[in-house]
Amino acid sequence: MKVLRTASAKTSSHPLQTGLTFDWIRLTAELKKILDPQRVISKPEELLVYECDGLVSYRQRPALVVLPRTTEEVAQVVKLCSRYQVPFVARGSGTGLSGGALPVENSVVIATTLMKQILEIDLDNRCMVVQPGVINTWITQAVAAQGYFYAPDPSSQSVCSIGGNVAENSGGVHCLKYGVTANHILGLTVVLPDGEVVCWGGKLPEMPGYDWVGLFVGSEGTLGIATEITLRLLKAPAQVQVLLADFDSVEAAGSTVSDIIAAGIIPAGLEIMDNFSINAVEDVVQLGYYPRDAAAILLVEVDGLELEVEEAGQQVRALCFKNGARQVQVASDPEERARVWKGRKAAFAAMGKLSPNYYVQDGVIPRSQLAFVLKEIERLSREYGYPVANVFHAGDGNLHPLILYDESVPGSLEQVEKLGGEILKLCVRLGGSISGEHGIGADKRCYMPEMFTPADLESMQWVRQVFDPQHIANPGKIFPTPRTCGESAHAHSQPEWQGIPVF
Amino acid sequence: MKVLRTASAKTSSHPLQTGLTFDWIRLTAELKKILDPQRVISKPEELLVYECDGLVSYRQRPALVVLPRTTEEVAQVVKLCSRYQVPFVARGSGTGLSGGALPVENSVVIATTLMKQILEIDLDNRCMVVQPGVINTWITQAVAAQGYFYAPDPSSQSVCSIGGNVAENSGGVHCLKYGVTANHILGLTVVLPDGEVVCWGGKLPEMPGYDWVGLFVGSEGTLGIATEITLRLLKAPAQVQVLLADFDSVEAAGSTVSDIIAAGIIPAGLEIMDNFSINAVEDVVQLGYYPRDAAAILLVEVDGLELEVEEAGQQVRALCFKNGARQVQVASDPEERARVWKGRKAAFAAMGKLSPNYYVQDGVIPRSQLAFVLKEIERLSREYGYPVANVFHAGDGNLHPLILYDESVPGSLEQVEKLGGEILKLCVRLGGSISGEHGIGADKRCYMPEMFTPADLESMQWVRQVFDPQHIANPGKIFPTPRTCGESAHAHSQPEWQGIPVF
Repeated sequence: MKVLRTASAKTSSHPLQTGLTFDWIRLTAELKKILDPQRVISKPEELLVYECDGLVSYRQRPALVVLPRTTEEVAQVVKLCSRYQVPFVARGSGTGLSGGALPVENSVVIATTLMKQILEIDLDNRCMVVQPGVINTWITQAVAAQGYFYAPDPSSQSVCSIGGNVAENSGGVHCLKYGVTANHILGLTVVLPDGEVVCWGGKLPEMPGYDWVGLFVGSEGTLGIATEITLRLLKAPAQVQVLLADFDSVEAAGSTVSDIIAAGIIPAGLEIMDNFSINAVEDVVQLGYYPRDAAAILLVEVDGLELEVEEAGQQVRALCFKNGARQVQVASDPEERARVWKGRKAAFAAMGKLSPNYYVQDGVIPRSQLAFVLKEIERLSREYGYPVANVFHAGDGNLHPLILYDESVPGSLEQVEKLGGEILKLCVRLGGSISGEHGIGADKRCYMPEMFTPADLESMQWVRQVFDPQHIANPGKIFPTPRTCGESAHAHSQPEWQGIPVF
Repeated sequence: MKVLRTASAKTSSHPLQTGLTFDWIRLTAELKKILDPQRVISKPEELLVYECDGLVSYRQRPALVVLPRTTEEVAQVVKLCSRYQVPFVARGSGTGLSGGALPVENSVVIATTLMKQILEIDLDNRCMVVQPGVINTWITQAVAAQGYFYAPDPSSQSVCSIGGNVAENSGGVHCLKYGVTANHILGLTVVLPDGEVVCWGGKLPEMPGYDWVGLFVGSEGTLGIATEITLRLLKAPAQVQVLLADFDSVEAAGSTVSDIIAAGIIPAGLEIMDNFSINAVEDVVQLGYYPRDAAAILLVEVDGLELEVEEAGQQVRALCFKNGARQVQVASDPEERARVWKGRKAAFAAMGKLSPNYYVQDGVIPRSQLAFVLKEIERLSREYGYPVANVFHAGDGNLHPLILYDESVPGSLEQVEKLGGEILKLCVRLGGSISGEHGIGADKRCYMPEMFTPADLESMQWVRQVFDPQHIANPGKIFPTPRTCGESAHAHSQPEWQGIPVF
């Protein structure tokens, strides 16, 4: 376990960090007046669960956790934080994988656990208004009977919150066809870092003026907290088919992906799992369904009108066989389909049961580089001596190498992070990206200069500075900081507002 | 004709606006060194064509027009403007309908007329990199043989530039299914208002950090000038069918639209033209194809795989008849389809030939309000005594009422603008928007407070201020200003940086 190196000497300008215990007591008392006492958590044993998110290797206990229920309560809490110059960190279900919800020292965590209301379902305009703590799957569940669904589906969808999805611009299996979270958020009510409440967007597909909604989605809690979210609903497809093809080589599965895309088919999902992942899933979940001896399986979901699905399904089948598939199974009824996807969705958890620890990377490459990158990952895995399993969104070149390790072996986490970093640099070198859907958070901020010039990063920080001149909204996330990334990060982290504490 | 009331007393802080002719001579000389003399236009008769864009009722002659060829040249020009504190206005083909490219007094117009290179076609990654002066249709033409296309298709697509499309976040007939310009821009090279060059986005569908590309698209030249644009290409559908149905009432056409959407069909285009528009088009274009006695026609394009199109086409046909269509014609081969669309695309121009002047409005309403809004528009048309034709993107509730008038009649423009304003307010009252795809520009800035609170508008201006502290990038556009919208606009226009000139 690694404790995040956060504020020390440089934070002396924060009144609460000068050792004046009195201020914390006063802040706590004021918070309890706003929220009532049981929604302000300060006991160390109760704070424990808020120490980290899904990036469990980083931990930091916050000073306080508060549980507001409404926009107004969030605004009052944030106003207090602003008055006391205390950093605050928004937190949904805490399933994020990049440390976006990792607290900073002496911070207030604003958890959306009690903000779970579906506020409005408007099928005429095909949208729904929800609070940020609503769980991803609840959205589809609420409108499935009327034939609608919400498209972005992270693997953690049965537990992750929609507020977290917005913060990290989450993806999922179905984002190849339907787009990521940013494409499905129509409007937001946001509490800005000074406690002001603004409403951006609405129920319409486009709005005049600057696109705040687009700017906010994926800003990882650094521009404020979304307290009401208007989501786009889609009409559920009439027919869905999932094909499971198994191959003797990962390359063959990769070429099939290229062929499917080239044929003009846009599957709803297009996923590859390698032999390691297949066996991990079968060991743990015991589906009895994935072929353990396959070098790779390809999962293809096609959806649409009945005839369309039939035609696309046949084309996909033919392309699989053309690329040497050993067999292709087709699942059409809902239960069968759910069974096929279950293994894929359980893959990360399965690794957790096989190995004391695992580290998930999230990189993107141009699809055409798939075969080369997988070979390079295999080479790096051997070089570093850590097994790497591959489960990924093949359709959009979004890799998820899972590096297995044991943190009780001294130095292993550092080695694994270095290996992960090499994979990210490889992605960037080939024209890809250091994040497809998990965000940058605390985990990957030091790699931002691999992708962005100092001018790019500076212009991003300008806007952050405009919304958050006190630098209290989830500080230290996304952008490289000297404390965590070394002095070279100075150029990127603090363009023009010296004197503001760096976390 | 109305001359835009621009800078006067309040602009005294601009050195070039204090009457120091010397500075203009020096600036012109420096520009001629950067661009060579024939690419710096200063003769009044040559400046004439740059006085307005498609919103011809507003005119303002710029001081200079420059014609750069490269990013570097644009950057040098902008750096000079910044040094001399001279406002600059980017201009593509000048077809915009909201006055986005309308010059301000004593400004430099940076026209992208010579920036017409297609820089890269990358079919592996399904994208193209172009200069901003490239004409919209050239993009599809360049890749059509390989089976690809670029989706957003404004009616002006054969003349409008992609840079202008990016600035205004343009829509088009096919945006119902494929989304507006913002959904198809992957990366941008931007010259910021201080002349710095930044690269945002890239070739990948998603990038970490703040979504600058999304913020820039639709910012109407107020955040800088895009000099290289990476566009998403789509695989052309295997089959396309256009259906033309005619109805005895506009309401019946409107209910058919609702039924089509409710059936889960997402047509590539879904347009309604009323009787007035049908006859205007037939008078001018003489297609001999649109039924002159119909109250309304509905144009529906369905595309996709062969079987899918057949099935969807049959469903659409049945829904048209269910709603009382008199007949439904089907066009399948490319020439026939082009003929059907020709009338729709020529509708604005046809009005121009029927009436000395016309004023196009661009409002959005929730689809469910269509019948009510059309009746209200008819009532307003009678009340004001100006004929209003309706041609619109029915699928996304994006109305284009065309108000016909004769500007030689004193006071008519003011009356027509007032009528247009009433229509916009009606849209907002029903939960809609004051712009679907034409932008705010100079034309609709005074209506922004109808949609946004002072806090919303102020937060937009914060960001503008960050990118353009000198307020020289297309000043006076998008946001209400006291000079044009009355003193009440003060609250919205100048949040915290008093002392910066208001244009």
